[in-house]
Amino acid sequence: MPTDRTTVRRRAHRGRYDRATVHAVLDEALVCHLAVADEHGPVVLPTGFVRLGDELVVHGSSANRLLQLAAEGRPVCVAVTLLDGLVLARSAFAHSMNYRSVVAFGRGRVLEGDEKAEALAAFVEKMVPGRTAVARPPTAQELAATLVVALPLDEASAKVRTGPPTDKEEDLALDVWAGVIPLEVVRGRPVSAEAGA
Amino acid sequence: MPTDRTTVRRRAHRGRYDRATVHAVLDEALVCHLAVADEHGPVVLPTGFVRLGDELVVHGSSANRLLQLAAEGRPVCVAVTLLDGLVLARSAFAHSMNYRSVVAFGRGRVLEGDEKAEALAAFVEKMVPGRTAVARPPTAQELAATLVVALPLDEASAKVRTGPPTDKEEDLALDVWAGVIPLEVVRGRPVSAEAGA
Repeated sequence: MPTDRTTVRRRAHRGRYDRATVHAVLDEALVCHLAVADEHGPVVLPTGFVRLGDELVVHGSSANRLLQLAAEGRPVCVAVTLLDGLVLARSAFAHSMNYRSVVAFGRGRVLEGDEKAEALAAFVEKMVPGRTAVARPPTAQELAATLVVALPLDEASAKVRTGPPTDKEEDLALDVWAGVIPLEVVRGRPVSAEAGA
Repeated sequence: MPTDRTTVRRRAHRGRYDRATVHAVLDEALVCHLAVADEHGPVVLPTGFVRLGDELVVHGSSANRLLQLAAEGRPVCVAVTLLDGLVLARSAFAHSMNYRSVVAFGRGRVLEGDEKAEALAAFVEKMVPGRTAVARPPTAQELAATLVVALPLDEASAKVRTGPPTDKEEDLALDVWAGVIPLEVVRGRPVSAEAGA
């Protein structure tokens, strides 16, 4: 159920509240933008993440101040955005973008022990499936140097725009090309690290 | 000059404070993540933007609550992130991503009149150069329905990771493929809107 904060108000018809849509966006995206407020105001930083069940899990150095604030249980907001296309309309005003985004509100909890190790492994698996079977696993020291924070997704919503531009009726006859330029993130040819580097 | 808040602390060697680097990231990216705090805590949302001089300009409906909060002059933080690659190390711990990001702190000012119209035109030009020469220009009513807020970039910094993984010395001999999988945003073949649609 959408809460007051997760109800999409602008372009309300683009709001999606089902878990399948929210999870699909989170499972495709590699980076989230995590916002926490400190004494000066909001701070937002990009960071990698993985979804596990109905939580969004971020991690970083134990000395990472933003993560420490999230670990303390302060209110956080996290946004995840996939950009799918540039929407060129006949009018400048109707130009837009196609996108799929998720915004979640909540308070973090720190993961420890097996949960922590499993979350870090899931993060590597998300980058390249099968990778944890070949990479050297983390040592106790490396685990201790890492802070892992899980954010609940019970107050999350998605917003999705797809399809062609929506020009006003009176603009449809204008002699202006209109349509969508699709955007896609592609993985290039892997570049090997030099031996010993 | 970096301020206390813009000094990159984690992986400090990745910090960049020159305007050329900051501007290059902003001019390539299409979406920013804008954070403002309300009475419940921080809110962060994705939105398109354009850099004009030493300001980052966002816009949206005049009824957009996040923009209204930014327009009121509350402290805002904005992050812009370009993801350049997945960094696969020999150890799970050293896995990383190559990226270029910018974070800026400040308070917005509302653009009006010519400044407002020029910013909206620049936004469309950023999507597709030359587009404002063909698209129908905004009407007075459309301009009135749009809120345009400029954020200063004097308290902005960039953070950049490039290159191969940085495994520990003792991991270099491990028989594990290591390197970078480049990520790139590509524009696909344009899809024309149906005539009259």
